[in-house]
Parts: sequence; structure tokens; C-alpha cells
Amino acid sequence: MHLTKISLEAPYLLFLGDCPDMHHAKTGAGIAFWRPERCVGQMRLPACPVDLGLPEMTVSDAQGAGVRTAVIGVAPMGGRIPDVWLPLLSQLAAAGINIAAGLHTKLNDIPALVDAASKGGATLTDVRIPPPDIAIGKGRLRSGKRVLMVGTDCAVGKKYSALALHRELQRRDIKTTFRATGQTGIMIAGEGLPIDAVVADFISGAAEALSPDNDADHWDVIEGQGSLLNPSYSGVSLGLLHGSQPDAIVLCHDAERLEIDETGGDYPIPELDEVIDDALRMARRTRPTCFCAGVSINTSKMGDFERDNYLSKMQSDLGLPCVDPIATGMTPIANFLLKYAS
Amino acid sequence: MHLTKISLEAPYLLFLGDCPDMHHAKTGAGIAFWRPERCVGQMRLPACPVDLGLPEMTVSDAQGAGVRTAVIGVAPMGGRIPDVWLPLLSQLAAAGINIAAGLHTKLNDIPALVDAASKGGATLTDVRIPPPDIAIGKGRLRSGKRVLMVGTDCAVGKKYSALALHRELQRRDIKTTFRATGQTGIMIAGEGLPIDAVVADFISGAAEALSPDNDADHWDVIEGQGSLLNPSYSGVSLGLLHGSQPDAIVLCHDAERLEIDETGGDYPIPELDEVIDDALRMARRTRPTCFCAGVSINTSKMGDFERDNYLSKMQSDLGLPCVDPIATGMTPIANFLLKYAS
Repeated sequence: MHLTKISLEAPYLLFLGDCPDMHHAKTGAGIAFWRPERCVGQMRLPACPVDLGLPEMTVSDAQGAGVRTAVIGVAPMGGRIPDVWLPLLSQLAAAGINIAAGLHTKLNDIPALVDAASKGGATLTDVRIPPPDIAIGKGRLRSGKRVLMVGTDCAVGKKYSALALHRELQRRDIKTTFRATGQTGIMIAGEGLPIDAVVADFISGAAEALSPDNDADHWDVIEGQGSLLNPSYSGVSLGLLHGSQPDAIVLCHDAERLEIDETGGDYPIPELDEVIDDALRMARRTRPTCFCAGVSINTSKMGDFERDNYLSKMQSDLGLPCVDPIATGMTPIANFLLKYAS
Repeated sequence: MHLTKISLEAPYLLFLGDCPDMHHAKTGAGIAFWRPERCVGQMRLPACPVDLGLPEMTVSDAQGAGVRTAVIGVAPMGGRIPDVWLPLLSQLAAAGINIAAGLHTKLNDIPALVDAASKGGATLTDVRIPPPDIAIGKGRLRSGKRVLMVGTDCAVGKKYSALALHRELQRRDIKTTFRATGQTGIMIAGEGLPIDAVVADFISGAAEALSPDNDADHWDVIEGQGSLLNPSYSGVSLGLLHGSQPDAIVLCHDAERLEIDETGGDYPIPELDEVIDDALRMARRTRPTCFCAGVSINTSKMGDFERDNYLSKMQSDLGLPCVDPIATGMTPIANFLLKYAS
């Protein structure tokens, strides 16, 4: 089985539409952060408050700057493309600029856009299309080592944590592959498997295919999806956890997140030790030796002093390495992971 | 949103293909058991050992008996239609007999079958097609009461337990609806939502749509799918559990099942109290008051004496009503459910 491999022509324009806040612009922000050398501008509807710090561009600016691909950098709830984006996207396509997106709505299913792309000679790339021949999960233990990011919620830093841990393992000359499970990760890595877009019966089978048998000393660093605690997406998270059969998990959290997003306050996030306990209890159904290698927390709203205190206290409470994947780095988690993985 | 509503013309011929054992013939067996008045015959390939106790029929027998629909009664692993079934299915369709199936492979995607049906004037009905407009799960508490079947594995009696409990509640003149989540249940009920066929991100949203707001004293009896313990299908089970937000669960088990099916012995089934504990721990994330109303066990291989001893011991160990849904009936579970549901 082949993973979804994509190839997008740089330079990129990051399209933000009417994105209401940074939280929903995680695709654009992720590409800008992990692939800055490819991004030359951003495009927004007038009311959009999100700013990725890139030059603001009109369609003709983008043409002038030689933009080859407009990447939709917003992940609206439910993954559908709002009608208000279509005039701008059509203008881009008609101007010969390729468009790439990873939403549930397919660019290639929108007739106006297909027409415009055809006129402009542009391509429309839908990243969130799973391969057609995924098998049912088997639960068979595979060779090689795996570490999976597990979240307290969506959009808390699972992808950043995985990419940072992957980079840290690479730095140590350890054989390692970042395994993307979502649209942004796939756009960053150039391949992966959009696990939340497969048919429900095949979630764990897709996770098994994403990290196949490998060298005994090779580490797959697997991007997580959703959260076992999230009432919208928990099925995806459990299928990914069971199919990954990870040697270890890393719990990812956002220090500002007090409750599950988009659920109107009915879902407070429990204490992190309880979240870890739940995740390990489930993980050990397919991987009895699974352990937690640390907690990776987005503390980007904190100053250095506050962050140090927060992470120290958390580390002392949990007895596990606690880091911010960007501000303090993944070294302690990589050390713990490599020390305790059998 | 409309549920998948189907309407199949009786009388039925139950098609068993090359089904290797009764366990994989659960669709045919379920229809024969719950809708015996509609079933007039069975059809098998020569080597098939499964017998539903219906008259054996050839294509011309079926024509002579006035069969209107051949229902595929086998659920092969992965839900795909084997090529060896196609000659017989094509002959049936060419003879004007409608065909209905609930597998992942669509009858309407098989050109030879579509041709034959077109020539014979037969219809091909694919039951396992989810509605197109499912929303993402919201996690909002809905009015009305719900009880969900939760299994130790696939094919342990969740559908039978739900149908038997539904019948018991009807007998007491309690407002109740059986909510089908799989192909056989949908074929029996005439409507439902094939939860394992939706896109992974929408599992809990589909479960929410399946049991919408209702009268405060109305009970949805929801058919379960898979098992939290099953490495192939656990994601479906968790999404269904979270989206159902059940007031109560009923644990369903097969007394003969010592390990998760099709996993080569790597997955023994834990003690039932541990299974209940896991399920309630997950269930209470979206429904904090969820409780277990009893254990419904397929003991069809036991004699009466052995069954009574087994169920008595289980009941005493677990402190919950333990029944066989067919042999002893759901009365104790219905009593417990109605007594403790607030």
C-alpha cells in the first residue's frame, strides 16, 4: 500500500480566508513555521484577524511574486470550504496559481473552482484523500520502534511535538521517520496518511499501514490526531493509538487549554496524570509495555520565569520529563524515550 | 438528517456464498431469526458448511418460489465481496431477483452485476452507505434516554441483545426505538445508520444523529459495534460510545469467546469486570452518570444446568443481572435499567 504522496510547487501563498483566530489557522502556521523557506505571502478576507507575519498579497501581488501554489491554511470545524472563500480561490486558479487543501470538502468537487483551474491551467490538490486499499487492522506486533503523540485535545501541539522530537532524534543520527496523520503534517512531510478521512472500520488498519515493519533500531515518530477526551474525534484517536501499537506515547497539551474546544464548557480537561493513565490503559490493549515518555506542553503565552516554574512543578508532580517543544526543546523526552524503550 | 432507510421486497433468499462458519453468517442468521416470516430459502456455494435451516435453493428454485430479494447473509473480514460469489449473484440478478448487501464493497460498483441486474430488471441495494450530510459530533447532552450495547468483541450478540431488550421494553408499553448501527440491524429494522462506514472524523456525529432528542421517557436501544478491546475496530466503538452518551450500557459477551477473533491468539479477553470498568471510564467522559445495567451473554452452546450455574456465578461475581438474551431473556436487565436510570 502506498501512502498519500503529494508534491506541491513552491513558493507558497498561505490562504487564510475568514479564519477567526490563530487556533484555526494551524495548517498555515505549521507550514510557515516548519517550511519557512517555501512561504512568500499570505492572503485573507477583509475581516480575518489572523496574521502569520508574511507579506499580505492580492492575486496580482501573488502573480508578481511568482507564487506557484496557494495553500489553504485554515481548518474550519468539520473541514468544509465556506462559500465566501470561493471568489478569491477562483481568481487565484484562473490566474494559473495551483491550489492545495486538506479539508474534507474536495477542491476537485467544487465545479466553479474546477472551471477556473481549467481556464488558468492550475492544478487543484486535495491532500486529505486516503489511499483506496487500506486493510482492516490486524493487531500484529511489528518490528521497529514507535512513539505516538497523544493529546489532551485537538490543536494542542501534537504535530509540533512530533516534528521537534523527530528533529532531535535526527540530530543524534538515530534512524527515524516522521509519520504524518493530518493534512498539515502531510503538507510538511510530503507524504503521510490522513487518518481522520478513512472509513471508520479502517482507522487502525490505516495506522498499521502508516508505520510498517522497520529496522529494529528505527523510530517512527507518529503525529497524533484529536484526543481520547474529545467527544467529536475520540474514535480516530483510539483507532490511531491501537493501530500504532506504540512503544511509548508523549502527552501533548496546551497550558492555556482548560476545556475541550468547541464543546461549550461541558468538557473540562482532567488532571494530566488521569489523561496519561487513560491513554496507557487503552494503549496497553495492543502494546502491553507502552509507557509515557514525557509531556510536551505549549507554553507560548508564558514568560520564561513562569514557564520554568510551570514545567518544573509539572515534572515533579508527574515524575516525567515536561517540556515546551519549541521553547525548551525535546532533549529530556528523547533521553527518557531512548533510556526506557526496551 | 435522514437515516439510511431501506425497503426490501419479501420473500427473501439468504445468500451464504462460501461462508466458512456460522460466525461469519451473522447477517443471514440474524434476518432468519428476527424476520423468519420473510425468509423462504438459502443459497450456498458447494463447499459452504453453514446451514440456516432454510430450504436449499438454486436460481430456478428461487424463481419458482417467488423470491423477490436475495439478501447477502455473510460478513467476510473487511467487508469485500469475493469474486467467487459473482457468477451466482449475476444469475440471480439476470433472473430478475433483487440483491441486497451491506458490505463495504458496493453491489452497484461491480459492473458485471450492474449489467446482469439491468438485463433482468432487478435492483441492487447497498445498505452500508451512510447519509452524506453527517455533522461533526458536538457532545451536547440530548433529551430522552439511551442504552447502548457494548461488546467484549465483534459478533458476540450485541444486536440480539438490543433487539431482545427493545422487545422487552415494548412488551411493557414503554416508548422505545431500536437504533441499528450495522447492516444486519438496518435490514431487520428497515432503517438505521451504518456507523462503521462513515468517515472516521464523523463517527460520534453519526452516533449523535442516530439517537436525536426525544421524549424524556423514551428509550433508544442502540445496537453496538465492535469492541473497545478489538484492535481492528475499537475506534468505531469509542466514537459510538461517546456519541451515544448513554444513560446505561449493557455488556454483551459470548461465553465461548476466550480471545478477540481473527487476531491469532494475541488478544485474550480480560475479566468482564475489567471490560465494564474500561467501558464506563470511557463512557463517563461524555455521560458522567453512565452505569452498567447488566451483562448479556450468548450461552447457546451450554445445556440448561450449565447455563444456570454459569450465569448465577457471573451475577454473583459482578453484582449485576447476567442473562442469555434468548435463552433466559432480558427481564432482569430491563428491571435494573428502569430502576436505576434517573
